[in-house]
Amino acid sequence: MSFCADIFADYNCLTTAEGLLSAGMEDVSVTFDMFFREIPDKGGYAVMAGLEQLCERLESLSFSEGFLASLTEQGFSQKLVDYLGSFKFKCDVYAMPEGTPVFPNEPIVKVKGPAIQAQLIETLLLNTINYQTLIATKGNRVSRAASGRRVIEMGARRAHGLDAAVDGARAAYIGGVSATSLFPAYTKYGVPVATMMGHGWVQLFDSELEAFKAYLEEHGEDGALLVDTYDTLDSGIKNAIQAFNEVLVPKGLRPAGVIIDSGDMTYLSKRARRMLDEAGFPDCDIYASNSLDEILIKDMLNQGAKIDGFIVGEKLITSSTSPVLDGVYKLCETEKNGEKSPAIMLSNNVNKITTPCSKRVWRLFDMESGKAIADVLTLDNENLSDEKVYSLFDPDFTWKRKTVDNFVAREMLVTVFKDGERVYNSPSLEDIRAYCNEQVASLWEEVVRFENPHRYYVDFSGKLWGVKQSMIEKIMRGDALTGDGDNV
Amino acid sequence: MSFCADIFADYNCLTTAEGLLSAGMEDVSVTFDMFFREIPDKGGYAVMAGLEQLCERLESLSFSEGFLASLTEQGFSQKLVDYLGSFKFKCDVYAMPEGTPVFPNEPIVKVKGPAIQAQLIETLLLNTINYQTLIATKGNRVSRAASGRRVIEMGARRAHGLDAAVDGARAAYIGGVSATSLFPAYTKYGVPVATMMGHGWVQLFDSELEAFKAYLEEHGEDGALLVDTYDTLDSGIKNAIQAFNEVLVPKGLRPAGVIIDSGDMTYLSKRARRMLDEAGFPDCDIYASNSLDEILIKDMLNQGAKIDGFIVGEKLITSSTSPVLDGVYKLCETEKNGEKSPAIMLSNNVNKITTPCSKRVWRLFDMESGKAIADVLTLDNENLSDEKVYSLFDPDFTWKRKTVDNFVAREMLVTVFKDGERVYNSPSLEDIRAYCNEQVASLWEEVVRFENPHRYYVDFSGKLWGVKQSMIEKIMRGDALTGDGDNV
Repeated sequence: MSFCADIFADYNCLTTAEGLLSAGMEDVSVTFDMFFREIPDKGGYAVMAGLEQLCERLESLSFSEGFLASLTEQGFSQKLVDYLGSFKFKCDVYAMPEGTPVFPNEPIVKVKGPAIQAQLIETLLLNTINYQTLIATKGNRVSRAASGRRVIEMGARRAHGLDAAVDGARAAYIGGVSATSLFPAYTKYGVPVATMMGHGWVQLFDSELEAFKAYLEEHGEDGALLVDTYDTLDSGIKNAIQAFNEVLVPKGLRPAGVIIDSGDMTYLSKRARRMLDEAGFPDCDIYASNSLDEILIKDMLNQGAKIDGFIVGEKLITSSTSPVLDGVYKLCETEKNGEKSPAIMLSNNVNKITTPCSKRVWRLFDMESGKAIADVLTLDNENLSDEKVYSLFDPDFTWKRKTVDNFVAREMLVTVFKDGERVYNSPSLEDIRAYCNEQVASLWEEVVRFENPHRYYVDFSGKLWGVKQSMIEKIMRGDALTGDGDNV
Repeated sequence: MSFCADIFADYNCLTTAEGLLSAGMEDVSVTFDMFFREIPDKGGYAVMAGLEQLCERLESLSFSEGFLASLTEQGFSQKLVDYLGSFKFKCDVYAMPEGTPVFPNEPIVKVKGPAIQAQLIETLLLNTINYQTLIATKGNRVSRAASGRRVIEMGARRAHGLDAAVDGARAAYIGGVSATSLFPAYTKYGVPVATMMGHGWVQLFDSELEAFKAYLEEHGEDGALLVDTYDTLDSGIKNAIQAFNEVLVPKGLRPAGVIIDSGDMTYLSKRARRMLDEAGFPDCDIYASNSLDEILIKDMLNQGAKIDGFIVGEKLITSSTSPVLDGVYKLCETEKNGEKSPAIMLSNNVNKITTPCSKRVWRLFDMESGKAIADVLTLDNENLSDEKVYSLFDPDFTWKRKTVDNFVAREMLVTVFKDGERVYNSPSLEDIRAYCNEQVASLWEEVVRFENPHRYYVDFSGKLWGVKQSMIEKIMRGDALTGDGDNV
């Protein structure tokens, strides 16, 4: 189940690598930020995930003979082939730990190192972090909608490929989902697996009752019965009750549950609950599945559906209502002959303008409530002291100011690679999941809510703001870079 | 870049396998159909893809020691471990060739073989075919919207994982896209790659002009310049023209193109076209990128945008407006002691009722126009002769009848595996792509159009319809399977 990360690059990264070598610029030291611009589903935060896989892929970065031959075949220079043939990763990498709530326009991964290398890993890095962060975010939404009920991820059959299914199951679990149906997600990552009956099982038997009895003989108290192969209430629930009575009760066992997979599940769950209660099985859980997502789950619970667990498929594993995290990877600083120059990208779209300089990210927590107040981006050589009052200001609306005291400032980016060597060990998956839960709890409920969440502050230090403004003004005046641009 | 397909199964498939072994039913011969219910983006057809990868994954199906140990760890029976330890694939597989336009509720893959095996491959089969078919369908939509202009797929950074990016690039190419930016899609599948400049290249230089000149020195007539790092018209296009004049013209070379990546691209493309024409570069192509899909492309072209090629990213590789193909895999027949029994699944949702029996799929082409008239599902032992008049009827609205003559009937499912051995060689990727183009051209334009396409007929033979109706009626009367279901 390994994927050669070595060759996962867009063609333009390879041509840039070739160009840098040819211009003798390959070792210019640069810093790139990965950040995203929009939170999926118009939510209040995203959940960082995929860092462990990024680390593994960067650690195993190398270029095979076959790959090098393809480069030659495509007309790339021998210089590039030689460079990649003896490739050794040399960058520093900093990142938000997995499970951290993250926000637009702040660096969630930062890469510092030789230009040729830092730009070569763009596609690999973005693909790895964008996807898992997307699914951890969706998993967190679905889990919150279920309000403590079990959520089982079962999307593999409609995930976008095999690794999407396995890595997505991991990410959803980080976000708060209870278990997955996908066995490889257990063997590869230790995600807990949940067993469920499929329609195929029922159809293999001459009658539904016979199928249920055989299943219970096999699984006893594990494994819920799928009750909608013919008719949910008049066949499925009735046969389930009969099978519980005939197979489990004599052995002193209790039923695990039933699964409703079609029809009006709110209505059916209430009817099924009553039937099960009256038959002496008030402890038999009712699961619902059928193209569920957080919106449907909230809606069903609001209507009083009697559901104890949700099986969530394609709408989670593809984040179908918002299937893209728009993470980008942009140059923010270059260093030539020991001198640092901030880099910026302007654009005809204002929201595409980047923030220059290699930056630190601080999260300020209120001492009293424990709640996160804001994130602040500073220059690398700035410290954000929590021993005195700090004045926050909004980089877009600078007249908006807020003074905070009695807070703790935590630096959010951890060092993951130093000079190309991995120096970070990921916590266990359980610990990442617990950390996510705890960090989401540190957000104000106005940020966490589903509808029109409050925008969490990602502010700049005065110095960083100053550098950005002066660069924009300089370019607009035409002092640098552009010709006579006057309508940026 | 290989993925061990061996362990890609949902837990319920493994418990079913265990149950079948324990009940001595593992060798009951069964037939499963894969079919989908809804066409992505409310389109008129989907484009079949992923069969070659399915074949490779089924050919390499085996179970590693580690996987078997995980089974034991999870409490599975020794009988299952032994069975999988000496696993040998024995099924027959039939499928629509890649590139075929396919329609809801018809088998696009059919698997016949021992129950334990046929049900064990469900997750792997659905994942492989659902994803590539989804992206081939989207790639076909985007290509059609571009009306013969170049379309370059560049979604790897936001694809759902690494294999989604590589396999997605292949599928998009089958659907009609011209090239990809992803190098591994070339090394693995031979998809043509296109080079483009990234923003990082421009930012590495002290000025945009310098960056453009260096790029042209390197790439000459290959590779378009990205002109929106500072300001599209007043900086980017002006500098591009100057760089063309200073670097290319003296060498007698012509520019490949420019890329606009932000702003109002219709407006900018018209202005850029005029500037380039006036500067003596009417042959310089203009490319557009920036979250494009078929809707935006059609809209821009309708407004008279001067664009020669489109670079399409996340909205293609995730099929973002419709990110799920809802393919399912359902039992349709069992055979015990030489006697075949049709299998059906009823449901509280009428559209979830399945069609019983192992079936053949025929496509009827009008002899005169060459156009596809309808698909017809028949029983395995029926022949659809095109030598006489055939009377089509709609399985939902049986009073709708249509008599056809002067047609050719082609059988659509090809034999891919026979007794577990692969007997099918995929055509080359180029041939699959050409076949797709040709087959889409065989559809009436009413089926092909984007808005409210005509529903293509997928009809039943009278015999098949009869079997399905009698099974539904029998179950509703309570003769079989259900207890006393009276409101199916």
